[in-house]
Amino acid sequence: MAHINLGNELPGIRGPMAFRPETAKPLNELAEILLRDDNNTLSRGERELIGSYVSYLNDCFFCHNVHGALAGHYMQCDMQFIDDIKNDFRSTPISEKLKALLAIAGSVQKGGKSVTPEQIDNARALGATDNEIHDTVLIAASFCMFNRYVDGLATWAPQDRQIYIDRAPRRAAEGYLDFDLYK
Amino acid sequence: MAHINLGNELPGIRGPMAFRPETAKPLNELAEILLRDDNNTLSRGERELIGSYVSYLNDCFFCHNVHGALAGHYMQCDMQFIDDIKNDFRSTPISEKLKALLAIAGSVQKGGKSVTPEQIDNARALGATDNEIHDTVLIAASFCMFNRYVDGLATWAPQDRQIYIDRAPRRAAEGYLDFDLYK
Repeated sequence: MAHINLGNELPGIRGPMAFRPETAKPLNELAEILLRDDNNTLSRGERELIGSYVSYLNDCFFCHNVHGALAGHYMQCDMQFIDDIKNDFRSTPISEKLKALLAIAGSVQKGGKSVTPEQIDNARALGATDNEIHDTVLIAASFCMFNRYVDGLATWAPQDRQIYIDRAPRRAAEGYLDFDLYK
Repeated sequence: MAHINLGNELPGIRGPMAFRPETAKPLNELAEILLRDDNNTLSRGERELIGSYVSYLNDCFFCHNVHGALAGHYMQCDMQFIDDIKNDFRSTPISEKLKALLAIAGSVQKGGKSVTPEQIDNARALGATDNEIHDTVLIAASFCMFNRYVDGLATWAPQDRQIYIDRAPRRAAEGYLDFDLYK
């Protein structure tokens, strides 16, 4: 049971978003522009993966499964591959550039000052642009917020991971701005 | 020097916000509704104090001074009092309810799961409403994002704390939605 009376039975972040739609609006707009906007040289799958990875590091079950399933949907891979990336991305066959960005995201999860010039240089040497580094930092930072919002209020989350996989295609199609999802 | 070329010399969060106005928009809208909207039973000073306290715990010099100065402006107290609260709020003469909310915010800073039912019960017993607990959690969570955004990109910050104090009245008057501040 959540720490406060949310007045609804919605899972994860959807509960407090329905409780306080005034703050849900900018939160969803931020997610939409960072994770889903087409004007970005990082793919939707890469961006969802960064968010899911940070959520996994923050031990946020709801977020790492929602966004892991979305990453799998966009990347056309199964949840096992997403889990392998979360557990040890360096040993998986993803691009070296994405590995460099995940390393930056992992540092942001610890704290902003954990990001090193060497990590930035490495990402840049592997082809990452300033825009991509910016978005990686902000995606990672924003999930440090989303995860704390979800778990700081002790919201509930479905434990069956298949539910997240089944839901991902619809979420991918509808995006984060469809407020009917929160009704 | 920042990790990426921001194309401007603006301090703190204003640098990356000017670099990427598309994401600055929802970030500022979130700050405005959480910290400044009048439809809230927490005062502006209390809300800025929660943000400043979390920023202090995250060792984000820019954010804890910007929002500490704003808290001092609204609460009509000097920076020493704000510093005393950051260092040991329990020994300061702020309300017991605000102490209970700062304790929750401090737990959110560590991670969402650090918030305990006892902290929630204590805040509620001291008069905190569900809306106030919700906003405390989201303010604390959002500053875990803002702080990581500022320091994860290694933005620069004025070291003279008087600059933050001098700037606070104008920022208080203009709020977070005035995009000319970022030009």
